[in-house]
Order: sequence, then C-alpha cells, then structure tokens
Amino acid sequence: MAIYPKSEGERRITAHALLDWVTRIFEECGMGEEDAALLGDTLVAADMRGIHSHGVLRVPDYVKKLQVEGVNPRGRPEVVRDRGAALVVDGGNSMGQIGSHFAMSKAIARARELGVAAATVRGSNHCGAMFYYTLQAVREGMIGIATTNALPTMAPWGGTDKIVGINPLSVAIPAGVESPVVLDTAFSYSSHGKIRIYHQKGVEIPSNWAFDAEGQPTTDAARALEGLLQPIGEFKGVGLAIVFGMLASMLGGAAYGTELGNMVDGPAAGQDGHLFVAMDVAAFEDAERFRERVDGAVRQIRESRRVEGVEKLYAPGGLEAEIEAEYRRDGIPLNEATWRGLEELYTLR
Amino acid sequence: MAIYPKSEGERRITAHALLDWVTRIFEECGMGEEDAALLGDTLVAADMRGIHSHGVLRVPDYVKKLQVEGVNPRGRPEVVRDRGAALVVDGGNSMGQIGSHFAMSKAIARARELGVAAATVRGSNHCGAMFYYTLQAVREGMIGIATTNALPTMAPWGGTDKIVGINPLSVAIPAGVESPVVLDTAFSYSSHGKIRIYHQKGVEIPSNWAFDAEGQPTTDAARALEGLLQPIGEFKGVGLAIVFGMLASMLGGAAYGTELGNMVDGPAAGQDGHLFVAMDVAAFEDAERFRERVDGAVRQIRESRRVEGVEKLYAPGGLEAEIEAEYRRDGIPLNEATWRGLEELYTLR
Repeated sequence: MAIYPKSEGERRITAHALLDWVTRIFEECGMGEEDAALLGDTLVAADMRGIHSHGVLRVPDYVKKLQVEGVNPRGRPEVVRDRGAALVVDGGNSMGQIGSHFAMSKAIARARELGVAAATVRGSNHCGAMFYYTLQAVREGMIGIATTNALPTMAPWGGTDKIVGINPLSVAIPAGVESPVVLDTAFSYSSHGKIRIYHQKGVEIPSNWAFDAEGQPTTDAARALEGLLQPIGEFKGVGLAIVFGMLASMLGGAAYGTELGNMVDGPAAGQDGHLFVAMDVAAFEDAERFRERVDGAVRQIRESRRVEGVEKLYAPGGLEAEIEAEYRRDGIPLNEATWRGLEELYTLR
Repeated sequence: MAIYPKSEGERRITAHALLDWVTRIFEECGMGEEDAALLGDTLVAADMRGIHSHGVLRVPDYVKKLQVEGVNPRGRPEVVRDRGAALVVDGGNSMGQIGSHFAMSKAIARARELGVAAATVRGSNHCGAMFYYTLQAVREGMIGIATTNALPTMAPWGGTDKIVGINPLSVAIPAGVESPVVLDTAFSYSSHGKIRIYHQKGVEIPSNWAFDAEGQPTTDAARALEGLLQPIGEFKGVGLAIVFGMLASMLGGAAYGTELGNMVDGPAAGQDGHLFVAMDVAAFEDAERFRERVDGAVRQIRESRRVEGVEKLYAPGGLEAEIEAEYRRDGIPLNEATWRGLEELYTLR
C-alpha cells in the first residue's frame, strides 16, 4: 500500500460520521439513498485501510462525474447475458461502484451453486479500489478476484506511446483467525497522483517510477508528468497490465485502453469495464483446513527474519488491517485539503 | 521472454526429430508412449518459442525425477472432486505436465458447458512452462489462465527468509489473424538459472535481480546465489507471488512454499500444485468481435512509437511467435551442452 507523508493539520472523523457526510453529498447529486450509501462506503472503506488515494479525497471528482461529465446518478446495472458460470453486467452508466458491487454479488451467488463464476461489467465508470469487491467474496468464504481497465498511462515495453493502463488487480483470500490475505495492486511502480505530490513538494522521484516523453527513466517529477509511468518488472508488468486490461474490458464489450479516453480529457462516461471472479473455497477443499493453512502462511511471513532496520513483515493486506484497527479506534485522519473539499460540497452541521 | 547469449557450436534440429528423441528417452524411463510424447511436446514447444530454460535442457533433470526422485512414470491423473465449474485433479504423482494437460482439458470441457471453469491439481510435480496449458485453451477459443506453486526463492518484502516461490502465471487470449496474446511470467526479476549463467561467465548481475543473504541488493552473482531473488515491483511482485501461490496450491490441497521443499534438496515428489482456468469467450461476448478487438490492440502496440534504438514492439507472446516461425523454418537451435545431455541419455541413430 501507499505510504503518504504525514500531513499537517489532519483531523480525525469516525467512519460512521464520514459515511453519513459523503452519502448526503451523493444524494444531493441525485443518487438514490442506497446507491449513495454504497458509493460512500467504498470510499470510506479505502480511507479506513489507509488507502487515502482511493478514499473520500475522490468525492469532488465523483461529484463532477455525476453533475458534469455524464454519469447517470440513477443508472441501474443489470445482467444482460447469463450462461452458467459466465455473466455479463451492463452498468447502465451508473457509478462504477454500483455495477461492480452488483456484479460481484451475482458472481458470488452463482459460485455458491457452481463453485466458480465470473461476471464482466461494461457500461460502467471508475469503480474505486478493487479490494472492496474481492472482500465481498471473502465475507462469503470465497476467493475474490477483481480487475479493471484504466486510462492509459504506460507504453508497451520499449515504446513511448501512452496506450496501456495500469489496470489494477485485486485477489483476496479468506483466512481463519488471521486477517484475510488481500492483494490490491496496479502494474505500475507508482501513480500520477503520487508523482504530482512529489512535483508540488519539488522533490525528485525514484528512478524506477517514470519515463520522460522519450521513454528514458527520469527523476524529474515535471518531466515524468509529461511522460509515462514505468511498469513493475519492465516487460513483465506491462504484459500483466495488457492481459488484465483485456480481460476487464474486451471480454464484456467495454472500452479498452485508448478507447476509454486519455488522461487530459478523462474517460468517456459509461464506457469502462471490469471483471469479477468468485471461487468458493468449499467447492475445492475442506474450508476449515484451507483457512488454517492460510493462517499458517500469514504467520510464517510475520515470524520470518527481517532485513536490518525493518520493524515488521506483513502478508498482503496485513498492514492495511492494522491501520483499519487503529482508525476504528481513533477515527480516520483526513488532511485539510480533503476536509475542505468535502465542506465545499456539504457543510456538516 | 528471456534473451540468452548466442552460444557457440549450436546445432539445429527439427521439432519433429527432437520430439521423437526426447519421447524415446521418457519411454525408456518407463512412461507410456502417449505420456512420454506429451511430456516431450511440452519441452519442444518451449524450445520452439525460444524459452530454452524450459525446453529439452530439462530432460536430464526430468529423467532423474523419474528414475531417482520418486515421480511415478505411470502415474495417472484423475478428477477427485467435481462440482459445477470447480474441479480438483489428483496427479497421482505423475510428471506435472501429465496432470496439468489433463486438468486444463477438463476445465476446457466444463467451460464449454458453463462458460467458465477452474481445475486445481494436487499430487503433482514440476509442470514446465505454463503457456503450454493456456494455449490449450486458446486453441478452443477460450482464454486460459494457469499458475503454479514453485520452490521458495524469495522473501516477503523486507524479509530475509526464503519462503515465497516466484510462482509463475500465464494468461493467454485468442486473437483473430494476429498471434494470440500470451503472457507467461514469474514474479521475480530473474531466475536462479540465469544468475548461474552470469556466475559461470564471471560477470556482474543487474542490481534489481537479487538480494544477498542479508536482504541487500547485490550485483555479485555468487552472493546472489546464496541470497534471494528480487520480486518485480518490490512488495507488489512478492504479493502477487504469494496470492497466486496460494491459489495454485492450497485451493487444491497441495504443498505451499516451504512445504514443497527447498532449492538445496529439491521438491518432495508428488506434492506440487497448480491451477488452471478456462473462460469461453463466446459465453461473454461475440467471439468474432472479441478477436478483432484483440487484433486491433496487438497492432496498436506494434505500430506505436518506439524508444530510440528499439527496433520492434511486441504484445505479450509476439516475440515468441516470431521465433517459432523462424525455428519452424530453420530448425530449433540447441547448444552443445543440451545436445550432449540428450546424447548421454539416448544416442540418435
């Protein structure tokens, strides 16, 4: 997960109050109460796990999507193709979170019957952090897999044209007494948002984060913003991004890569695509035994030897679970800019 | 894919003759004709795509597995659990390729009915390059996904204990007139085999390939061999390795990570695990339209702008398809050591 610089003037708020706040904002944009609360919950859940880049920081952008950019606040997802373990959902140009939650719910229900099911989503929009949907599956005793198409910010390996998205992937696996194993990662080293923060602060970025417009590694944040994000593992990461982007978009008939738009003009409304897979552990293996073995692997990581200076080791999602426990106790910290962004939209009374 | 230094004294052989050669070697180890030919085909197919690390170079190791290390040359895979789209295969301690091919065939047949199906394999052994199985799905108009557990060579991020495998993943996607998109990648930057070659030649390795035993990056190949492989994308790559390793092993009840063994003693026979998923494109989308869109994305990559000095850009699997066309015409080049290794086992007459 992303580690953010500790910000001055942060204020804490309970998850409950924050959810209430953002739900009202989305209701004022014309969303129904249930959808507004679901959208709010996806954002608060991200903040709650310390993934503030995908938290309520996004609310002003999302309001713009609903009010200016053509996303339908009353859009309704529906299953438009249904064959055994394969489902296609049309999001009806709803907020991406609405169609994604719907699609994963359908995949889970079908996996309950058939052991495994996959639901693609088209007619959708930005759907936030993917872990939200894979944890839906985990709560039902299933493995969740989720991937989405993203606006292109990378080039093919050796190229300079921005035609590949960082197309995130989440895989979540139920544990027993330990927190579930939750991977949620894009296939770039960093993100535009993080590079923008370095640019504002006037500090250099690590040399593996970005390429300049000619495809050469750069530590200059300004040149990076005009250039390309670097994939993880060179050709490997961009290859992963390409295949998961195709699965997330083409399989359900959604826009892929440059078809979705670009980072300057933003995405075309209602063209985005995602893929959700649920695998019922109990269909394959004794669920109890499985959970115990996941617990064992999580503990093995935690108890293994550390590089000098490293305080603690985590399985994927372990650090976020720790943050969640802290924030549940002490409240979620929001920085001044995020707080002001929300207040400009709706003042807490 | 891996680029190997051009070797002196390489000899070319047709795929047909090479397959015949290695098939006889495996028959002499007690394998049935059909299984021996299948195992041989998986190796020749890897050489054919330029992936010599997973080609017939492995034959002496595989013979040792069959003759000394306890793999059953007559082992028969069978479906031991069958629920809708979820299948569990026990490899019966056969060579990993036998159970893997069997499992993907079963997943494909089930996906033909249900759109999507997944087959886990336990009771198995090293199964070679994963692309072989994902291309099985592609030939049936399906998307193939394959992942396997591997002996641990990495540490959790920030750790020094060798407890995570590089757990490769392959995803293959059918195209129309273009070659299929075929990703096949491990989640490490490099491999033990490649570092050994650098060590033999006495040259330094890139600083992102390995850590020394204390978990510090090293360019010294000898220290690297005593140390750890570096994951791609730091915590991201090792996280990917962890979740795909769990899916490949725990879901089907196979050994995970250190349970399988270590790099010194090798894997325990008949404990390995893999996962194969088939997704029938036609269950989700008009197959013709899908293939045309994949073609379009492949062409977009090929025709996009290149970094100065780069000659050509490829979609995943594109370079391998080019190599395959060349080798089909001119024969497969084998270096002297590989050729000798085969001749020691069985002399071509």
